[in-house]
Amino acid sequence: MVYELYYWPGIQGRGEFVRLALEEAAVPYVDIALVPEDKGGGVPAMEKVLADAALERPPFAPPFLKAGRRYIAQTANILLFLGNRLNLAPRDEAGRLWVHQLQLTITDFLVEIHDAHHPLGANFYYEEQKPESKRRSKDFREHRLPKFLGYFERVLQRNSAGGPGMVGARISYVDLSMAQVIAGLRYAFPLASRRELRKCPRLRALHDLVFARPRIKRYVASSRRLAFNNDDLFRHYPELDG
Amino acid sequence: MVYELYYWPGIQGRGEFVRLALEEAAVPYVDIALVPEDKGGGVPAMEKVLADAALERPPFAPPFLKAGRRYIAQTANILLFLGNRLNLAPRDEAGRLWVHQLQLTITDFLVEIHDAHHPLGANFYYEEQKPESKRRSKDFREHRLPKFLGYFERVLQRNSAGGPGMVGARISYVDLSMAQVIAGLRYAFPLASRRELRKCPRLRALHDLVFARPRIKRYVASSRRLAFNNDDLFRHYPELDG
Repeated sequence: MVYELYYWPGIQGRGEFVRLALEEAAVPYVDIALVPEDKGGGVPAMEKVLADAALERPPFAPPFLKAGRRYIAQTANILLFLGNRLNLAPRDEAGRLWVHQLQLTITDFLVEIHDAHHPLGANFYYEEQKPESKRRSKDFREHRLPKFLGYFERVLQRNSAGGPGMVGARISYVDLSMAQVIAGLRYAFPLASRRELRKCPRLRALHDLVFARPRIKRYVASSRRLAFNNDDLFRHYPELDG
Repeated sequence: MVYELYYWPGIQGRGEFVRLALEEAAVPYVDIALVPEDKGGGVPAMEKVLADAALERPPFAPPFLKAGRRYIAQTANILLFLGNRLNLAPRDEAGRLWVHQLQLTITDFLVEIHDAHHPLGANFYYEEQKPESKRRSKDFREHRLPKFLGYFERVLQRNSAGGPGMVGARISYVDLSMAQVIAGLRYAFPLASRRELRKCPRLRALHDLVFARPRIKRYVASSRRLAFNNDDLFRHYPELDG
């Protein structure tokens, strides 16, 4: 069985967290976003699934993963499913739930990162909500960003197994996601993230460690990895960086 | 072992989704929000856990559940943990992940319901973001509300087991959560929700069925159930209802 990942073409977005897990595990998968439309890929393929009235368990939105005949949606849920199968999660139930809990906290963090440039919602362009974005992103930089980063730094510090990641002695999928969040924050908020990450040596080290892993390095150097850009989740608008 | 639920006093909030599962299963639990501060409950008890430097796996935010010596956070994760133990989730892995996926979609819906009155974030009062709330809630009523409700109505319709709920032949925790969302929407957006729910007979029936269950009925009639109010997740501001 070859996994198929369905997501928007042209952006990393939430799909990237799934890609990093699949790449780290070196399992074969088809990234439908990279398959040309006339070869059955791209947006039409994704929309066909979303509109399929014969599907008993339809996804609400991308990303979703096709595994055999099943479609699994919600980024954190996809990673929960893949974690065991790709050997990127602890084996015990308590450890698995803890990794998932951290992933869900990253999910919340991502909503706030996104809403810093889209406080009125995704149905308005950034240009239609610039003053509101400035107010929200000021609060984000001053309160929410330090709160989230401080939390994850403490989690790294308290990992009693002394692993390089957040849980146990080995890297798990949530570490890959955390490294991606740090890369994204550095793109979107270079000033604010540098200031906050100065207090987070463990997060900086985790970022470096993840992006130095051979398979992740190979992936990032490949044409499969898209560049950060301003149609994406992480956006760089200097006026929002303080 | 007696579960302990930690959450903000005075509101239903996200804690209510956990309470409904515990009440439906009729397991003993302590609602720390209802325990007086001088008896070791309330906000200080919650903050003590959040600030406990000896905790290897700290919650980021309430609600969280104490189960034995573990603290489990993130509403959907708590329900994933409780689902099997309380017999409120399917037994097979695919079914469990599907119920969890739906719960995560409800989580996303709740963020948008909350942000309709707090688009600039929770650190500003509603009164400081009224014009922004009007813009965001108009988009919410016209696009997001119909999209989410339409999705869950389809899920009910496609449940091939013919159960009264979204998955399989029996009620699961996500059905309890869905009924609570409908009750909350009717409080917060009486006009907009009536208009949209007219097209969703299955969601209306699910709401009635859940709140007619003997244990849920007893709970709602008890002093443990707080009333909806405007310090809560669901808020009724007539100007946001169109």
